[in-house]
Amino acid sequence: MALYVYKFGGTSVGSVERIKSVAERVKKIHERGDKLVVVVSAMSGETNRLIALANEMQKQPNGRELDSLISTGEQVTTALLSMALQEIGVPACSYTGGQVKILTDNVHTKARIVNIDDQPILTDLAEGKIVVVAGFQGVDEQGNITTLGRGGSDTTAVALAAALKADECYIYTDVDGVYTTDPRIEPKARRLDKITFEEMLEMASLGSKVLQIRSVEFAGKYNVALRVLSSFTEGNGTLITYEESQMEQALISGIAFNRDEAKLTLTGVPDFPGVASKILGPIAGANIDVDMIIQNIGADGATDFTFTVHRNDFGKAKDILNNICAELGAKKVTGDDTIVKVSIVGVGMRSHAGIASTMFKTLADEGINIQMISTSEIKISVVVAEKYLELAVRALHAAFELEKPTI
Amino acid sequence: MALYVYKFGGTSVGSVERIKSVAERVKKIHERGDKLVVVVSAMSGETNRLIALANEMQKQPNGRELDSLISTGEQVTTALLSMALQEIGVPACSYTGGQVKILTDNVHTKARIVNIDDQPILTDLAEGKIVVVAGFQGVDEQGNITTLGRGGSDTTAVALAAALKADECYIYTDVDGVYTTDPRIEPKARRLDKITFEEMLEMASLGSKVLQIRSVEFAGKYNVALRVLSSFTEGNGTLITYEESQMEQALISGIAFNRDEAKLTLTGVPDFPGVASKILGPIAGANIDVDMIIQNIGADGATDFTFTVHRNDFGKAKDILNNICAELGAKKVTGDDTIVKVSIVGVGMRSHAGIASTMFKTLADEGINIQMISTSEIKISVVVAEKYLELAVRALHAAFELEKPTI
Repeated sequence: MALYVYKFGGTSVGSVERIKSVAERVKKIHERGDKLVVVVSAMSGETNRLIALANEMQKQPNGRELDSLISTGEQVTTALLSMALQEIGVPACSYTGGQVKILTDNVHTKARIVNIDDQPILTDLAEGKIVVVAGFQGVDEQGNITTLGRGGSDTTAVALAAALKADECYIYTDVDGVYTTDPRIEPKARRLDKITFEEMLEMASLGSKVLQIRSVEFAGKYNVALRVLSSFTEGNGTLITYEESQMEQALISGIAFNRDEAKLTLTGVPDFPGVASKILGPIAGANIDVDMIIQNIGADGATDFTFTVHRNDFGKAKDILNNICAELGAKKVTGDDTIVKVSIVGVGMRSHAGIASTMFKTLADEGINIQMISTSEIKISVVVAEKYLELAVRALHAAFELEKPTI
Repeated sequence: MALYVYKFGGTSVGSVERIKSVAERVKKIHERGDKLVVVVSAMSGETNRLIALANEMQKQPNGRELDSLISTGEQVTTALLSMALQEIGVPACSYTGGQVKILTDNVHTKARIVNIDDQPILTDLAEGKIVVVAGFQGVDEQGNITTLGRGGSDTTAVALAAALKADECYIYTDVDGVYTTDPRIEPKARRLDKITFEEMLEMASLGSKVLQIRSVEFAGKYNVALRVLSSFTEGNGTLITYEESQMEQALISGIAFNRDEAKLTLTGVPDFPGVASKILGPIAGANIDVDMIIQNIGADGATDFTFTVHRNDFGKAKDILNNICAELGAKKVTGDDTIVKVSIVGVGMRSHAGIASTMFKTLADEGINIQMISTSEIKISVVVAEKYLELAVRALHAAFELEKPTI
């Protein structure tokens, strides 16, 4: 008899029919005799509807009130799913985050889980009940309702799996697993049976939005076996797990990309200690996240400084940079918001040389100019012109033979 | 500096604009320096929407899950109103029934309030905050969410007013007070400045659906001064209070009526002890509420037994009665579902003779046949044919001079 935590996202519970279909899926596990905790999101569209109402009330909705407002979305789903389960003869009981209770810090709209009281859940499970828990929400020490930020239901599921020492945590979503790259760009993209936490983190943060990053970090930290799979089709999905020593480790697991990039360059910057912080300080001060940063030492005592930001922040960042340019006596500001980032990710590259050169040669063979390069232990990212995105992804997918199953 | 509890019903908070207009009304009290607790219902239509979802999930929605589901409606309103208040510079804080906390018994969908922890509210009020509380809901000892039944927000408001020893409890609704009768039937109907709890109970239970009966009982029990008024117009509404000795007590305060009545008669019932319970037992067993009951002793050892039920239960009650008829050896079952009940209500009738005869004479003068009569200390009810309803109400309104203000 095993214990699982299942999480169903907003599209999986987006209608009466879909909630009933989730109930049928849960019934099978129940009949098999396994224990199950189900974490649900708000029905798709509901959270946005509530946020729109909040925005009509207050220019900057108060965090505490916003959390109380939007947490109702998940509460509705838990009650409806419990009813649907009871209707088909499966004993079930719903809980809000506050009832379970999922204790968080008091940072409204992006709270972090501090503790979970697993006792009420264990009691219900022992009585043979399916426990349905509202994702995305908790309470602080004072009993104020908090939420964990968008996608926080994934984190709720993983945290519950960790607290309950569940055998596996299944994240049901609208895709049937993690792919070597986006199948809309490369139809030959292959679903991975397995991926490591580290690879998943690189894939997720680079734009393969299957799982909330925090939930993957959490799963890695507490060693929760995490599986991503589709609530609309059958299949085993992708297991996210620790790296295992394998005879034939795949060199590269996947190709991630991010369309929403823009780059900014300050040329002819006088080269003195602290220049980077003088440039990036005001950018950070304006709440603009910087992604890649590259600085080349010039021969004439001046340097060129380049970084990328989210495309939405391009205009604001450029304005700030123009001011800095004058202050520092730099030459000029240039920018480009028609760039993308393409990355190859894989724990295998740790132990294999030549991955980078294969990547660069592949792109060169296609006539794609590499504008920036950034590397980490398990990924290599390049910035290229937006128009090359599809070509680059397909060429790299072929070069690393990602369409072929690993042994 | 006074302390008030204001309650706004579903239509009063039915849209973003209306919630903002409630916020403006609350702001005035705040600027006057008075303390205020605001109880709100779900936005109009929301509770019905949620119940419809529940009915799609489960034939007989589970009470615990249903309460968790529908309690979200009020939670949404509290958060939105708090935001609207903060936006116009009024410090405000929202609470669910569980957070306040409003402790109830565990009878789901019609729980009764057991206790209220007034400490968090008093703390907020002392800090100059407006406290916004979700009506209609509470929690039981185990932390399960409960609801108080339809109209339960009125009860929440009165219970809070009692617990906090508020100076007055204002029930804002879509009518501007309690009238001598329904103005849609008698345009000369006059808004009462004052009515006693007892009269209000008779008026409410007889179909003048302004306030939930339980809230009036509660207010009477704990001596909470209750005021009913409109959230859409200015005015002082109607104060519901203890009877005060007045030199010129109005004889009759108002005329109530109930359209949804049906009567059933069993004729020629052998008259022996226990016959009434033999007839009404099976009716009660089928969950049919009986209103008026009349039994006349016949001369020949047989009796006629008549009672009224809600019109929806007419068919079911008649079927049951047909079975009983045979069992008891009674003559036959007759029935009429085109009757109505008209009542005159007033504490003044306690000390004045002749009220009943004025009533009966007035009806007789209009050629209205009285089919049944039932009396209590402060009301007289008659059953007449449906077609006479408007005529009877207007004639009685004129006969007791209800259009004239009391001194």
